Amino acid sequence: MKLTILGCYAATPRTFTNPTSQVLEVKNHLFLIDCGEGTQVQLRKYKIKFSRINHIFISHLHGDHFFGLPGLISTFRLLGRDKELHIYGPKGIKEAITLFLKLGDSWTNYPLLFHELESKSPELIFEDDKVTVETIPLEHRVYTNGFLFKEKEAPRTLNVEAAKKYGVDRSQFHNIKDGMDGNAKNGNTVPNKLLTVDPPDPKSYAFCSDTVYKESIVPQLKSVDTIYHESTFLDSESQLCAKTKHSTAKQAAQIAKQANAKQLILGHYSTRYKSIDLFKEEAQEVFANVELGDDGKTFQL
Amino acid sequence: MKLTILGCYAATPRTFTNPTSQVLEVKNHLFLIDCGEGTQVQLRKYKIKFSRINHIFISHLHGDHFFGLPGLISTFRLLGRDKELHIYGPKGIKEAITLFLKLGDSWTNYPLLFHELESKSPELIFEDDKVTVETIPLEHRVYTNGFLFKEKEAPRTLNVEAAKKYGVDRSQFHNIKDGMDGNAKNGNTVPNKLLTVDPPDPKSYAFCSDTVYKESIVPQLKSVDTIYHESTFLDSESQLCAKTKHSTAKQAAQIAKQANAKQLILGHYSTRYKSIDLFKEEAQEVFANVELGDDGKTFQL
Repeated sequence: MKLTILGCYAATPRTFTNPTSQVLEVKNHLFLIDCGEGTQVQLRKYKIKFSRINHIFISHLHGDHFFGLPGLISTFRLLGRDKELHIYGPKGIKEAITLFLKLGDSWTNYPLLFHELESKSPELIFEDDKVTVETIPLEHRVYTNGFLFKEKEAPRTLNVEAAKKYGVDRSQFHNIKDGMDGNAKNGNTVPNKLLTVDPPDPKSYAFCSDTVYKESIVPQLKSVDTIYHESTFLDSESQLCAKTKHSTAKQAAQIAKQANAKQLILGHYSTRYKSIDLFKEEAQEVFANVELGDDGKTFQL
Repeated sequence: MKLTILGCYAATPRTFTNPTSQVLEVKNHLFLIDCGEGTQVQLRKYKIKFSRINHIFISHLHGDHFFGLPGLISTFRLLGRDKELHIYGPKGIKEAITLFLKLGDSWTNYPLLFHELESKSPELIFEDDKVTVETIPLEHRVYTNGFLFKEKEAPRTLNVEAAKKYGVDRSQFHNIKDGMDGNAKNGNTVPNKLLTVDPPDPKSYAFCSDTVYKESIVPQLKSVDTIYHESTFLDSESQLCAKTKHSTAKQAAQIAKQANAKQLILGHYSTRYKSIDLFKEEAQEVFANVELGDDGKTFQL
């Protein structure tokens, strides 16, 4: 998995900071997560191929998370896209985007498929043979979801050297890859486990923005590899934080700690702060492995 | 009048070029004309005070002319605006903006007043004691207006030296400013014209984007000081130009020439061209005083 942060600052786009958007590369997919104003320019800046994006996940319908979507959809059309584009987002998103396209008489030439969300429980919203995506129900001023991206466990891979060693003929390789035991020349059965190699551990990534501190999401996030969790405020602004239904850096760290995550990435910083270093410091009082998200930063997960 | 071009490239925003938006400063107003995605970032970049913008004019509802509007309206709210904001644009703009604000439960705290346009004839849409704004009906793939900004003729100003010379007492100054003649100490009547100075010529600016070559707008534009006219294409793309209902640089120049304008500013260049210099060359075959609009460029009109 490779994560590219296109923007991770709260509220308004500015000359050098961008509202929320990320690209997650996983098993040949390029998933776009949120799409604040200017996302398409950021995609160009970081040379991410528009044509590889087929799925867009929108957490909620505040401007800093989706006002870049009408423009991106229009640009896909201008670039001659013909592949399906799937958009997952809160109920209402289809009407909003459709109205914008209708007013400009700018219908897409490609199939634009909306998957509207309204459940308050985790839902499996995407699945193929290698990846699943689930919603993470969050709590903010409007209906909001995070998204949990999980690789599926890959099949065990054949160990050709071991097969030779145990005298297992190549005619059986197909069955062994399918999980069956082997038969040695001497008639002995060779357990599948001896003829195959453990697959790499499947990776997982949880995107959580925007939300109050919400402990009830912890079981769903248990042992996830990396959590991106919003941290709009520092402790000094905890009252404003509660009022606006956001989280502090320390609260983000508490979620990561309880979920036993391997890594926490912070973001969605209020633009009131001159430096973001303090976010890391405050989070590390609770959880050690904290990284500061920042526009243009990439993470190999 | 001072014109700041925030963006003047067609279609999609890119790292170094922006879709259409301009700020016209006239008689203490800061009029925003069109609002493509990223306009609010350009406003910050060129240090234009958000609080001075009270009127936004939208030519048509294609993305590259108005997808920056929901974000700008939201940012005004975040900045604590309380003054009225007036938006002039095609019918439908109110529903679109209202839906976006509703979905985010992000209503403005300030009065947001829409003036929806649907007439196909020129309309006076703004007037105060110093300035008028009229629509210029254009022809594009969707309903589109240009905008004609005109200063009103200022009152003649008192010439105190002349009053002294003709023996006119200061008790009459107020009446003279109102256009009355003066009475000299010797009983003679002194014509108002001798006691006052000609006001500066009122300036005018016509914004024309996007449109086919449309000769019927020329009478309305007669003797305007400066015309900004879209020139999406060069002559070599004249077929594509006609098909997409745009104008070439030469056609823009033909409008300026027939209108007897003092100056033509070009813009709305297709992003297919590596350099915009040829636009000026082709336009100057028809009309001499051509300026190339470009992002960040300012013009004292």
